[in-house]
Amino acid sequence: MKFQAVKGTRDFYPDDVRLRNRIAEAWRRVSLRNGFEEYDSPIFEYLDLFTAKSGEGIVSELFSLTDRGGRNLAIRPEMTPSLARMVNARINSLPRPIKWFSIARCCRAEKPQKGRTREFFQWNVDVIGEDSVLADAECVFVVVDFLREMGLTPREAVIRYSSRELLSAVLAGAGVAEGDMIGVMAVLDKRDKLPAEAFEEMLAKAVPDVKARDAIAGYLDMSEVGPGVGVASTARIDEAIGRVGEFNRLLGVLGIADWFRYDSGVIRGLAYYTGIVYEVFDVGRSLRAVGGGGRYDGLLEALGGPKVSATGFGMGDVVLGILLEEKGKLPETPTSLEFFVIDGDGRIDGVMRVVGGLRRRGRSADFSYARRAVGKQLKEANRRRAATALIVEQDQVAAKDLSTGDQGEAMPIDAFLAQFDGGGA
Amino acid sequence: MKFQAVKGTRDFYPDDVRLRNRIAEAWRRVSLRNGFEEYDSPIFEYLDLFTAKSGEGIVSELFSLTDRGGRNLAIRPEMTPSLARMVNARINSLPRPIKWFSIARCCRAEKPQKGRTREFFQWNVDVIGEDSVLADAECVFVVVDFLREMGLTPREAVIRYSSRELLSAVLAGAGVAEGDMIGVMAVLDKRDKLPAEAFEEMLAKAVPDVKARDAIAGYLDMSEVGPGVGVASTARIDEAIGRVGEFNRLLGVLGIADWFRYDSGVIRGLAYYTGIVYEVFDVGRSLRAVGGGGRYDGLLEALGGPKVSATGFGMGDVVLGILLEEKGKLPETPTSLEFFVIDGDGRIDGVMRVVGGLRRRGRSADFSYARRAVGKQLKEANRRRAATALIVEQDQVAAKDLSTGDQGEAMPIDAFLAQFDGGGA
Repeated sequence: MKFQAVKGTRDFYPDDVRLRNRIAEAWRRVSLRNGFEEYDSPIFEYLDLFTAKSGEGIVSELFSLTDRGGRNLAIRPEMTPSLARMVNARINSLPRPIKWFSIARCCRAEKPQKGRTREFFQWNVDVIGEDSVLADAECVFVVVDFLREMGLTPREAVIRYSSRELLSAVLAGAGVAEGDMIGVMAVLDKRDKLPAEAFEEMLAKAVPDVKARDAIAGYLDMSEVGPGVGVASTARIDEAIGRVGEFNRLLGVLGIADWFRYDSGVIRGLAYYTGIVYEVFDVGRSLRAVGGGGRYDGLLEALGGPKVSATGFGMGDVVLGILLEEKGKLPETPTSLEFFVIDGDGRIDGVMRVVGGLRRRGRSADFSYARRAVGKQLKEANRRRAATALIVEQDQVAAKDLSTGDQGEAMPIDAFLAQFDGGGA
Repeated sequence: MKFQAVKGTRDFYPDDVRLRNRIAEAWRRVSLRNGFEEYDSPIFEYLDLFTAKSGEGIVSELFSLTDRGGRNLAIRPEMTPSLARMVNARINSLPRPIKWFSIARCCRAEKPQKGRTREFFQWNVDVIGEDSVLADAECVFVVVDFLREMGLTPREAVIRYSSRELLSAVLAGAGVAEGDMIGVMAVLDKRDKLPAEAFEEMLAKAVPDVKARDAIAGYLDMSEVGPGVGVASTARIDEAIGRVGEFNRLLGVLGIADWFRYDSGVIRGLAYYTGIVYEVFDVGRSLRAVGGGGRYDGLLEALGGPKVSATGFGMGDVVLGILLEEKGKLPETPTSLEFFVIDGDGRIDGVMRVVGGLRRRGRSADFSYARRAVGKQLKEANRRRAATALIVEQDQVAAKDLSTGDQGEAMPIDAFLAQFDGGGA
């Protein structure tokens, strides 16, 4: 073939779009019933917006482009920077809390591999302007509401959570300076990704004090949050523990506790998380994370706005699709057609009148361009999964139910169409 | 503000998304009921695909980017090249005719102005693999079906059409060489955009022969197609006239003739059109075209595929939005919420149980994060346009209809929720 899709991108043939739409519709339906409103940003932004959030290191992961005026732009790799920009621009007029979602096409210049494409769709759900852990609990409820909507259960998917607030408090208690914390967290985030020895070596560099490292190890090994987090208690630690406890309690009230597992190892590498953080995995953990998120109270301010708290998550379509497929939960996406209109006498005009009349009345109808035998047209009607075939002959229409094979009496075209009057969309 | 959207792009706040979704849903609903299936391509392609279709001149209108491997890419400015690529890749396995539509985000590096943004959404509807004018008639029926769906009538919108096949035949009859035709058509396409004198001058350069120019002028002044197209009849001219006549006849059979006006001045500048071509305008013609299309039988072959005929159209969201607004036909897009759950006793747990229980059963429900007086919460319920307020107190729920103000008897939370069992999505 002369032309191909760019490596790492996907062509969406009709079967693929039907599946993508089914997932997007479920994302939208669940978001709306949870009281979130949809927003969207342009597909590209000024490059500065992305580096302001993620540092210069992000540039190599972006598809960058240049404006006519020579300005540096990039295709969005995620929605959070655009969300922060849009909210900051109207921060004084938007009623709070701001509960917004988006279903966004995003691109990253990554090496394509299982679960990772260079173009993907990401569902984003965020609450802005609410400090309390209620907002965090509501966001994870939305995650579970969607997983359930797709037929998944806690036997297939799990949400692992921890608290960056607690981790910060523990690191402070262990003597790590505030200015070093992000660096230490970046190391801790690598624990699952590195050989144990390499990890220990990196950690020893970041935290030279052995006692501090022991305290951190104790924290990471905790299987539930309570007194004794590896270091001596401080007010900061107690407050963080209290908030994790309240989050936990709300999971129970909301009836979703069985989807959750506390896991100190969930760090979320990014610098800006400040509270509860979580990641959605398949239970066997054979796949990458399906999604993740958490509280990020400092980001809007860092991007030029006032100090406003925020919490939310993102979920991509690629790993989700693999998970649904592996668990046999991919939704069925049959095509549907109400009427297939068949030319019984070799004259197209009657067919066109019936087809046009039905469509104008909001009903779905199709026909064959080629003039052929009725039997061949019936075959096409079946291939197209039409519910009813309409056989048009001498300005008369006879309806044939394609599941039972029953054929009704013929009637004049106008009388037939009049049955559908008032049924338009 | 520190960060802004790139000039010429649009932020979509919730009101904007609701409108965009209403239009996209209408595009999708109309396409499906006309028997078309949805497809989509990646947002960027290899640059070569676009220059192969439109020539090197297109490059300055594209947002180009470079791959990690140094390959030249561009964000799609339209869907037709990607459509041709995707169809060519499966030309032997796709059953024909291929009736496909897409709702595509596209970008062009144009100067932003009224009706033109640098990012827009375009509805594309195409039939591939059908030679007969039936397919052209079906495509324009889809245009009209959508315009009607939006509440427009022939008093507000008109489809001007002509035939590139007839124009070619007339130019041939006037002595224009085949190799010069595209150049001459590009000049004719400028007739409405240039002062008369400048146009005449350009045409004189492209067609030096005065008699030929007179013939062309006669053709352009024709108000309907029939014998006497400015030059002596030829078999090629007669054939083209016959096809326009059949197209016209089908418009009548389909009951949409009153939306159409024959206009020889509709040229469609692009090289690849080969048959019926058309543009959708507001009746007063104060705006740019809302959409346009036509038959393009040579394109798939030009893009590396076999010789396969094709016809279709595109319609953008920007001019359409202006037209709907000017005609007072913008759809209403109210927010909707079934239940707003109110905390009547300062305890959040009952509220969360009701909210969670309703959402899990597929119903939309929201609540206030802040603990406040019932009156204030009722006010928020009204601001959010909830249909019903649910007041939760001591594990009992009382429903208040917010349109009538009627309040029902309180009942236990579990009994209340049980009413919605089996009602999930």
